[in-house]
Amino acid sequence: MGYPDTFEGFCVDSPKTWNEFHKSELKPKPFEANDIDVQIECCGVCGSDVHTVTGGWGSFDGPLCVGHEVVGRAVNVGKNVKNIKKGDRVGVGAQVWSCMKCENCTNANENYCPHLVDTYNANYEDGSKAHGGWANYIRAHEYYVFKIPDALPSHIAAPLLCAGITTYSPLVRAGVGPGKKVAICGIGGLGHLALQFSKALGAETYALTHSPHKKGDAQTLGAQEVIVTSDDKWAEPHAFKFDFILNCSDMTDTFDLKTYMSTLKVGGQFHMVGLPDKPLPEIMAFDFVSNAAKLTGSHLGNHQEMDDMLALAAKKGIHPLVETIDISEAGCKEAVERVKDNKVRYRFTLTGFDKVFGSK
Amino acid sequence: MGYPDTFEGFCVDSPKTWNEFHKSELKPKPFEANDIDVQIECCGVCGSDVHTVTGGWGSFDGPLCVGHEVVGRAVNVGKNVKNIKKGDRVGVGAQVWSCMKCENCTNANENYCPHLVDTYNANYEDGSKAHGGWANYIRAHEYYVFKIPDALPSHIAAPLLCAGITTYSPLVRAGVGPGKKVAICGIGGLGHLALQFSKALGAETYALTHSPHKKGDAQTLGAQEVIVTSDDKWAEPHAFKFDFILNCSDMTDTFDLKTYMSTLKVGGQFHMVGLPDKPLPEIMAFDFVSNAAKLTGSHLGNHQEMDDMLALAAKKGIHPLVETIDISEAGCKEAVERVKDNKVRYRFTLTGFDKVFGSK
Repeated sequence: MGYPDTFEGFCVDSPKTWNEFHKSELKPKPFEANDIDVQIECCGVCGSDVHTVTGGWGSFDGPLCVGHEVVGRAVNVGKNVKNIKKGDRVGVGAQVWSCMKCENCTNANENYCPHLVDTYNANYEDGSKAHGGWANYIRAHEYYVFKIPDALPSHIAAPLLCAGITTYSPLVRAGVGPGKKVAICGIGGLGHLALQFSKALGAETYALTHSPHKKGDAQTLGAQEVIVTSDDKWAEPHAFKFDFILNCSDMTDTFDLKTYMSTLKVGGQFHMVGLPDKPLPEIMAFDFVSNAAKLTGSHLGNHQEMDDMLALAAKKGIHPLVETIDISEAGCKEAVERVKDNKVRYRFTLTGFDKVFGSK
Repeated sequence: MGYPDTFEGFCVDSPKTWNEFHKSELKPKPFEANDIDVQIECCGVCGSDVHTVTGGWGSFDGPLCVGHEVVGRAVNVGKNVKNIKKGDRVGVGAQVWSCMKCENCTNANENYCPHLVDTYNANYEDGSKAHGGWANYIRAHEYYVFKIPDALPSHIAAPLLCAGITTYSPLVRAGVGPGKKVAICGIGGLGHLALQFSKALGAETYALTHSPHKKGDAQTLGAQEVIVTSDDKWAEPHAFKFDFILNCSDMTDTFDLKTYMSTLKVGGQFHMVGLPDKPLPEIMAFDFVSNAAKLTGSHLGNHQEMDDMLALAAKKGIHPLVETIDISEAGCKEAVERVKDNKVRYRFTLTGFDKVFGSK
């Protein structure tokens, strides 16, 4: 078999062999009138891929093909598709379907649809599996396929499809802009984009990091001040300071949350987009009352936010710092291992798909 | 000595003897130009009093006089006081001072002033102690002394000074009103007022309780539906339902927080005003992302909110359900023991102050 009946991707079999990738045949969902097939040119490597293959977010039955920062060309376009044409350069993020009928979907919160289908390690309602983008093709509902602005090279656009929207959406939903003091906590794959978005949206932007060596990068990316959280009593001079803290770290289980929350203005948010495998540290109801701090999190963003984010990135030159690795068994292994060990500055994009899969 | 040099109140000596009250002499702060002395007519009994005397919120050095739902007459009014005259019937809640200079104070968040002085078990900046209202007199800064509307009897007004403002402020700050679905969780001293405020503000109001026998009361107080949380799978029919949950229970340490949060709309708040002695139950960052739930809490309310709350209560007949107990060693003991055992429907006010302290 082969396209369009089957796709081919680099897969792992189980959490026990999380860094051992092999090419496998993948059976996509049946092609429907609102679907688009994308021939993949490159795909980002996200912390979620690593949490998933290692079983940190739960076990799975392989072969599993991860990857949800996909850029490529639309090669097959369902008859009801309105906004994408065959040949368009498009992206697919971490969601490929939602019901379009529930209260969340009809209120521009389709990223919270209770029936949503993640890009991989997920099933459609008909039982078909969704397969990720470390593959030659991906199939997605048109609402989850986005035109990539010409100003964004593909390997730069790829991480925006997940890391970009994940950080952009909470910033805009919190009203981040001029007059707001925003701290970005954790300067990694997510945080280094969040700094740029916060600055571009007009906020006074600060970086919180436990890594003093990231100071220079954080300043270059938009932080007017870098606060090193490994210092004793780091928070004291910053009590009641921030309107919004976007916590991009996925080590929140090791944080003294109360200390972080003490730097929020009255009613300010400590907003988590990094999702550790482990529970949050112990916290008291009391810890919320000295400033009415809000502890929260979010999942991706909606369609309009994705379009807006890509347009803003194109207009303001917001680029992830990307290292590219050619996709292969060894390349996938290197990518997940280095992301797991936090040895990436700041994001990988897997490239060279035509070399291993051929071009159509 | 005696008034105005010293006051007299019913005190406990330590958490070990938390239910053993005795009359002690209390040294108030020096009287200043913005201070008001109130001769106390009655005082409510708050969960905070019990958390404090039992040492649940930390130890203390006695003699300690609790009580922060005070109603009485202004008997001495500092020369700079503007809005209160000698003889006015007034109330004092759980805060007696703030700096009036910091960013919180100057932004109508004086209830979050980092220098604030609680009504008892607290020190002023000059080292003077603040003493609570189970006493003959209380001294407070004018900004923390509120005129009681004529329509509210004193024993009814007393619980509004803490339980009332504690529940009213977060409702109005969350924009609760027509078109909003609000759940009040925990139908006790706080919750039975929260139901009335939520209804009076125009919200569709629901009660969440693990006590099926409270159903009738909750409906009478304003709940259009009472959801019994001891039922298995209680939350499932209510997924994504509430804009706001006001959690008035102080048993949150025993809750399955994730289940409660699953009933919030996207971006909805689970807002805690009950403060258990114990940490919150284990929770994952993941538990926030299916609906961007916000976990938060608050502390009292500001001056304007207190005035508004009292006016609303007077106008709409929002009355706490009050049992009165005459103040005495035995009366104070009974009050704290029954609040601790949750044997009160729904709030106590200590009365009969003139009998034990005489009238001036």
